[in-house]
Amino acid sequence: MFERIRTARERLRGHANVTPVMTCRTLDESVGAEVFFKCENLQRAGAFKFRGAFNAISQLTDEQRDRGIITYSSGNHAQAVALVGRLLRVRTTVVMPGNAPKVKRAATEAYGATVIDYDPEKTTREEIANILKTEHGYTIIPPFDHLDIIAGQGTAAFELFEEVKALDMLLVPCGGGGLLSGSAIAAKSIEPTCRVIGIEPELADDATKSFHTKTLHTVKNPPTIADGTRTPSLGELTFPLVLQHVDDMRTVSETAIVEAVQFLFYRMKMVVEPSGALGVAALLSAEVSATGRVGVIISGGNIDGDLMSKILSSGKKRP
Amino acid sequence: MFERIRTARERLRGHANVTPVMTCRTLDESVGAEVFFKCENLQRAGAFKFRGAFNAISQLTDEQRDRGIITYSSGNHAQAVALVGRLLRVRTTVVMPGNAPKVKRAATEAYGATVIDYDPEKTTREEIANILKTEHGYTIIPPFDHLDIIAGQGTAAFELFEEVKALDMLLVPCGGGGLLSGSAIAAKSIEPTCRVIGIEPELADDATKSFHTKTLHTVKNPPTIADGTRTPSLGELTFPLVLQHVDDMRTVSETAIVEAVQFLFYRMKMVVEPSGALGVAALLSAEVSATGRVGVIISGGNIDGDLMSKILSSGKKRP
Repeated sequence: MFERIRTARERLRGHANVTPVMTCRTLDESVGAEVFFKCENLQRAGAFKFRGAFNAISQLTDEQRDRGIITYSSGNHAQAVALVGRLLRVRTTVVMPGNAPKVKRAATEAYGATVIDYDPEKTTREEIANILKTEHGYTIIPPFDHLDIIAGQGTAAFELFEEVKALDMLLVPCGGGGLLSGSAIAAKSIEPTCRVIGIEPELADDATKSFHTKTLHTVKNPPTIADGTRTPSLGELTFPLVLQHVDDMRTVSETAIVEAVQFLFYRMKMVVEPSGALGVAALLSAEVSATGRVGVIISGGNIDGDLMSKILSSGKKRP
Repeated sequence: MFERIRTARERLRGHANVTPVMTCRTLDESVGAEVFFKCENLQRAGAFKFRGAFNAISQLTDEQRDRGIITYSSGNHAQAVALVGRLLRVRTTVVMPGNAPKVKRAATEAYGATVIDYDPEKTTREEIANILKTEHGYTIIPPFDHLDIIAGQGTAAFELFEEVKALDMLLVPCGGGGLLSGSAIAAKSIEPTCRVIGIEPELADDATKSFHTKTLHTVKNPPTIADGTRTPSLGELTFPLVLQHVDDMRTVSETAIVEAVQFLFYRMKMVVEPSGALGVAALLSAEVSATGRVGVIISGGNIDGDLMSKILSSGKKRP
């Protein structure tokens, strides 16, 4: 599987951004470790999702490209697929819940994709995508449970190691587990002693439960502010990969997530969406006690102005 | 004067951040140029001001350091002087208007400086600073009208040229003219054909008027959102330097400034204060028509959550 990540890295060259790695003296002093942020909020389309989407779609045959692609996503994956569809001139359809963040829906449409609404209380996005697939011959580009997607997402951690070399610990947000399993495979292949920890919101702790019990748990539309982690469960591929390659899973409170977004805004001048701030939340709340050299994947930065305003006024934290 | 900038660059090594240079495909496509952002919002204390402050304060004698320093500033210079004071263990006093942004006052105090309020309607900050200087023997570290400050600020443009090499144009925000004159001296010394343009808010266009008429104009507490440019006028040193080294001055509307902050937030995931977004405002509003390789100095990122919320809800621009 590591070979797939290495190949994906070559495939992405010149297409995905090699995102910068940032550091913050204030955070280092406060947590007593040397922290390196891999800034996927500065990836194209604003999140790591571009990596997996490009890796998967660029491998389709001409015939598959001609028929078009479809995906289902609450947001960042949708934008990524829509952008890659535009770049590779593939007609793109996205099934999206009616309550998806406005900024994500608008960006998906701006990239030229057709957005199809659905009511998450009545049906599942997979059902709708499958109907349309059968009708039109679309290829489904799933948000995480696909080896090319997982390999693509793993390239962020791969680049992080290329740049900062040794890491003692790597913190990765977890939704469906594509980023987490890809990152874990990259980290363990490059540096077997690096401890890889997945971070979830307390309110959407299905993967943490699944990890600790070794039995798949699910959640339904969990009310966490971290909308990128509202996926119902790990996937058929990502669950075993997470079990095999990840060292631990931890959860963080909604308050910790809000404070992490505020910290990133005021101290690091970075716009990070709540799901993207999970690793920072784990550090600032001491849910993970960091030592040595710690990598943190900042997974995305697509946040509605309204939500950011709400977060900035929350608790009126001093910067 | 360029030699002073070069020396300042050496003095800052290991103390100031060598801030990253960012690019944005969306902006390049929209303006038809290749734009390089020098991200001084990622400088220590959140703005370019650290450069000048460190360059000046690190040159004080032991006796001067023992007596302490004082400055007057509406914000970013205050934070920078306070931080440098802490780093170099020099007692620091800051005279600040009562209506200064909360985030800037709080950060100044957090760095350990003593903040002294004044009412800008009744007296000037220079008067108060001079009284305290006489009383306590403080050394005044002025916000812009000082050769070591100007040389320190010029190091940002110096670094930008080091990293991106040739530039056809350089856009620099203008308040008191320290950053602008330092940048212009650096640019013209390194690349004489580079066109250096200072950008001001329309509502605080004293430097633009001064530049075009060659007579010093002043403004009093101009109601621009770009609080970093509310300085009354260019200084005794900066005015002639701007006249000598700057090619043109342009102004941008308050709407253009708001839209630039929004663009930087949504598209580049960067937290930039209004004054820091002046160059982007000039590009997006086509006040400056850019061609070739364009450098833009993003001067700072210290913005109140309340102000950012107001900006994000303004016009409800789509990201």
